Amino acid sequence: MPAYTHLQHAEPVLVAHWLMAYVEMFLRDAERLADGRKRVNLCPLGSGAVAGATLALDRTFMANELDFAGITANSIDATSDRDFVLEFVNTLSLLGLHLSRWAEEMIIFSTQEFGFVHLPEAYSTGSSAMPQKKNPDLLELVRGKSGRLAGSVTALMVTMKGLPLAYNKDLQETQEPLFDATDTITGLLPLVAGWMEAEDFDYERMNKGAESGFTNAWAAATYLVNRGVPSRLAHEQVGKAVKLAVEKGCELQDLTLGELHALNSLFDQSFYECLKPASVLAIHDVAGGTAPVRVRQAIAAARKQIETLREEVHAHA
Amino acid sequence: MPAYTHLQHAEPVLVAHWLMAYVEMFLRDAERLADGRKRVNLCPLGSGAVAGATLALDRTFMANELDFAGITANSIDATSDRDFVLEFVNTLSLLGLHLSRWAEEMIIFSTQEFGFVHLPEAYSTGSSAMPQKKNPDLLELVRGKSGRLAGSVTALMVTMKGLPLAYNKDLQETQEPLFDATDTITGLLPLVAGWMEAEDFDYERMNKGAESGFTNAWAAATYLVNRGVPSRLAHEQVGKAVKLAVEKGCELQDLTLGELHALNSLFDQSFYECLKPASVLAIHDVAGGTAPVRVRQAIAAARKQIETLREEVHAHA
Amino acid sequence: MPAYTHLQHAEPVLVAHWLMAYVEMFLRDAERLADGRKRVNLCPLGSGAVAGATLALDRTFMANELDFAGITANSIDATSDRDFVLEFVNTLSLLGLHLSRWAEEMIIFSTQEFGFVHLPEAYSTGSSAMPQKKNPDLLELVRGKSGRLAGSVTALMVTMKGLPLAYNKDLQETQEPLFDATDTITGLLPLVAGWMEAEDFDYERMNKGAESGFTNAWAAATYLVNRGVPSRLAHEQVGKAVKLAVEKGCELQDLTLGELHALNSLFDQSFYECLKPASVLAIHDVAGGTAPVRVRQAIAAARKQIETLREEVHAHA
Amino acid sequence: MPAYTHLQHAEPVLVAHWLMAYVEMFLRDAERLADGRKRVNLCPLGSGAVAGATLALDRTFMANELDFAGITANSIDATSDRDFVLEFVNTLSLLGLHLSRWAEEMIIFSTQEFGFVHLPEAYSTGSSAMPQKKNPDLLELVRGKSGRLAGSVTALMVTMKGLPLAYNKDLQETQEPLFDATDTITGLLPLVAGWMEAEDFDYERMNKGAESGFTNAWAAATYLVNRGVPSRLAHEQVGKAVKLAVEKGCELQDLTLGELHALNSLFDQSFYECLKPASVLAIHDVAGGTAPVRVRQAIAAARKQIETLREEVHAHA
Repeated sequence: MPAYTHLQHAEPVLVAHWLMAYVEMFLRDAERLADGRKRVNLCPLGSGAVAGATLALDRTFMANELDFAGITANSIDATSDRDFVLEFVNTLSLLGLHLSRWAEEMIIFSTQEFGFVHLPEAYSTGSSAMPQKKNPDLLELVRGKSGRLAGSVTALMVTMKGLPLAYNKDLQETQEPLFDATDTITGLLPLVAGWMEAEDFDYERMNKGAESGFTNAWAAATYLVNRGVPSRLAHEQVGKAVKLAVEKGCELQDLTLGELHALNSLFDQSFYECLKPASVLAIHDVAGGTAPVRVRQAIAAARKQIETLREEVHAHA
Repeated sequence: MPAYTHLQHAEPVLVAHWLMAYVEMFLRDAERLADGRKRVNLCPLGSGAVAGATLALDRTFMANELDFAGITANSIDATSDRDFVLEFVNTLSLLGLHLSRWAEEMIIFSTQEFGFVHLPEAYSTGSSAMPQKKNPDLLELVRGKSGRLAGSVTALMVTMKGLPLAYNKDLQETQEPLFDATDTITGLLPLVAGWMEAEDFDYERMNKGAESGFTNAWAAATYLVNRGVPSRLAHEQVGKAVKLAVEKGCELQDLTLGELHALNSLFDQSFYECLKPASVLAIHDVAGGTAPVRVRQAIAAARKQIETLREEVHAHA
Repeated sequence: MPAYTHLQHAEPVLVAHWLMAYVEMFLRDAERLADGRKRVNLCPLGSGAVAGATLALDRTFMANELDFAGITANSIDATSDRDFVLEFVNTLSLLGLHLSRWAEEMIIFSTQEFGFVHLPEAYSTGSSAMPQKKNPDLLELVRGKSGRLAGSVTALMVTMKGLPLAYNKDLQETQEPLFDATDTITGLLPLVAGWMEAEDFDYERMNKGAESGFTNAWAAATYLVNRGVPSRLAHEQVGKAVKLAVEKGCELQDLTLGELHALNSLFDQSFYECLKPASVLAIHDVAGGTAPVRVRQAIAAARKQIETLREEVHAHA
Repeated sequence: MPAYTHLQHAEPVLVAHWLMAYVEMFLRDAERLADGRKRVNLCPLGSGAVAGATLALDRTFMANELDFAGITANSIDATSDRDFVLEFVNTLSLLGLHLSRWAEEMIIFSTQEFGFVHLPEAYSTGSSAMPQKKNPDLLELVRGKSGRLAGSVTALMVTMKGLPLAYNKDLQETQEPLFDATDTITGLLPLVAGWMEAEDFDYERMNKGAESGFTNAWAAATYLVNRGVPSRLAHEQVGKAVKLAVEKGCELQDLTLGELHALNSLFDQSFYECLKPASVLAIHDVAGGTAPVRVRQAIAAARKQIETLREEVHAHA
């Protein structure tokens, strides 16, 4: 498929490489949740109203019994702090933003004009007035709900701002944004996963897209560079080739060797091979690049990372 | 000093215990910054425009040479992600909220009515019109600037929302909130530290406050509980004693033994000892409580934690 | 009572003058709601799915029948716009901020240290652990809920950002912030009004506060200015008098004529009269000032404005 | 061009009808600014520090001389209120959201896949690495800057939250968001206007888009309704026609009369005429609809409204 920058065709990438970008985002979200757990997993029991309990409690014993990792360190802080709410909701808001980007791409890719995605019936609706419509309702709700999560962040910041210590009833107002953000995300994630299982990519359209819009221009310049042409000159000459192709209404691979030789005599028949999507993919053979071997390695590494995160979660469950 | 809940007198606490609440907040902020460092400290070099570099770069070697902890895992994600900006600014916004609570307390405590804090001249200003005024300008700016930091959070969320992958020029708009939040916090922190060094607490007023407003009512109930009175009954009887004292316009320690015996015959002369601030502090002898021995332990533990964080920072510097 | 700037005593004002500041805020809120009504009160019926109805509807007739003031002007805009939600919720968020300032003042004024407000029982709660406590729960909830309203503003901004025309399912997400903000405000307002009817100001404490903290320093300078002393010099000399009084631990009115004459020979017995709260109030005899006659005029003007707004609302009901 | 709902083809509309949706948004923004002017255009001079001036000033005279429409009504409110900042920035944030929607549409419409917009050279940039790229930089910055404006809204709300009356130094922090939002908008608007003058719509592609994706399905149903078929049945039968066309890989106008008769015998040769874009446009002949006569009326009405707003602005200038 074509990868986009500025929503303009840039270079071809494997569909898996594109989707792995989201995997990376979600892995960071999971890591952030795990990091936050350290700070939330402390037992405040025994802090009393503000100055600490007046009974000789063994707070560490209680915390262990209740499966906390430790105890809070200051009774005033323990009764007035809501960092654990803010940090958690901040993290969910980031996850929500990632989902909004995913939804936006899927919505654009399922337009008639892009045609990369056939919308799954189960997650779409028609129109009462327009019988031809199939609308990406789920995707739009996912995108829209990033607003709700961001709203919870602001609500919490405004509520906490300028509160004197220790407990104030204002803190009660931190509960609803916390629960709402949690419910929103736990509601969305299975639907997003379900959508991904049900979606139907149009690989033919994607492939065709990858071959158009001069996504092989950089590869063309690399071809010259590999033959000893200085980078700047290579890009300039390929720029001229692109310009010629635009005028002719064709792609680079449709130019004749004659036309190419007018720009640089180093072009030969092998150039056409290097312009094919598979060849373009192959030259991005660097860690994190879209060369198939690299993407396979990235998938394996991510699977391992997911496995580790899962084990940690189970250890706490 | 009196600890407050709902800005009403609750119980006496050591000034150090109160200030340690802020130390706990700032330690969490520091921890969050350290956690975020793991995710920001990855080198994106070699990601190319979107699909990865076309040169056979050893990205890990480059990252090591540049003192990064590792490399980013996906070229599309690396060129379109700004999580490191959002997570960092989210963390600074929390720090800003902590500072706003600190400033609010110091402003209230420096009013004529509270009188716990004599405003340091170097951080205050007078009034052109009112010659008697000494205004807590720095504290108000610190409190006000929590808005600026929260604004950066919203700015980033709105800017990132719904952006298709990979690079879009919108991402340029993430730089200014990042730099502004950084400058705001690095500007504020030395001033806050300087204010704390310059401030002048009125311990006499604080102590007097700790002795008024029935901050020893809970201790009074504990006195009865320790003599075998059921908790509920003890609180009820002390509640009656408080009511009587309010009517008489005095504190619990000003009631006569005769008046107390009318409520419960277990009251004896030792009750007056247990009502003194030092006695009240002492019974909060639990981890994280305000008993002096516990506060000393908490300070030692915090110092150690700060030392560890400092060493980590220096290791990376 | 003392009016505060920077939460420090500034000048004495009538309690009515202070409360009228909030009346002004709420009147602006009401005006903004009325202004927004013009834009929301347009009937979108007949806009079809996006391009306009295909039946020859008389939209103006329908709008009249349904009691709208007019019709929307463009079918694409009518089906994709949610300005009326954002403008309305923005206006409610401002109202919420006004309420947060009112609540903050009432909370501070009901502390033991200020003692200006006796908390009404019906709107306060006690503490299970501390029998002496009476907590300003309603005030704290009012203050805290400004966060919820601000959160709705952010939620709406993020949801609407970057949506292509016309209808998208994301717009469904604008409903909940709208309803929630409406419910929050309509829930709060009767409670705030009820609180105001139930509250019990301690006018004696307020008056005593008005006489301390050198709130008559400006009036003292005005005394000299009225006797021909240049403004700058007058303030300087009163500043010295304040300094002297601070050293002596008294107020300006407690200085002797002898002490005053050392600063300026124009001081005479009438000076003590001009330092009394009533005299200080009287010299602020300017439109919008705290001189009693001006406050009475302001109250009359506000009553009239409220009446007008009420009539407009009834005309639409 | 095709109008979109859910970014899916809905019905054909005139390009002017589409652009007029934005004119409506901007007219509301201008109205809101004019409404806010009433509240900001009041002179606070003479409010003193908090209680009103102590000189016998004629505030109304001063306000007239300084070209204000009136005076503020309460000295405490006048010195502590920043509603005029919040209302103004709220209004600019709405304008910013409108611009973000405009930018989003233009970005999507200038993709290779849509091809409705040829990006103007003066407002676009190329890529150093990819010689074929022309990126919609200005549009992306416009979209991204909606975040900055939204951030100013949050900054102001957080800063104002819970401030006691009257002046506090926190209020200084309302200036930068105000100036920044003003500069952002006044910077963007001429660029947006310039972009619109420079852009180059591809009317051929737009027209072709309007003829595909079954944008005439509703018109087809209307055809049957006008011949007496109940609405529900008409939509059902056209739905079947659409399904048949999808299977054949064609549009409704490519079905034969024979195929249509199998669904309903009322179809005749005139049906093909009614499927043409011009016919579809014409049947949306309702106020605010896309029928050319209605769009011309709407343009005339908007021009008049703009003229009125301009005159008001000049009256104040």
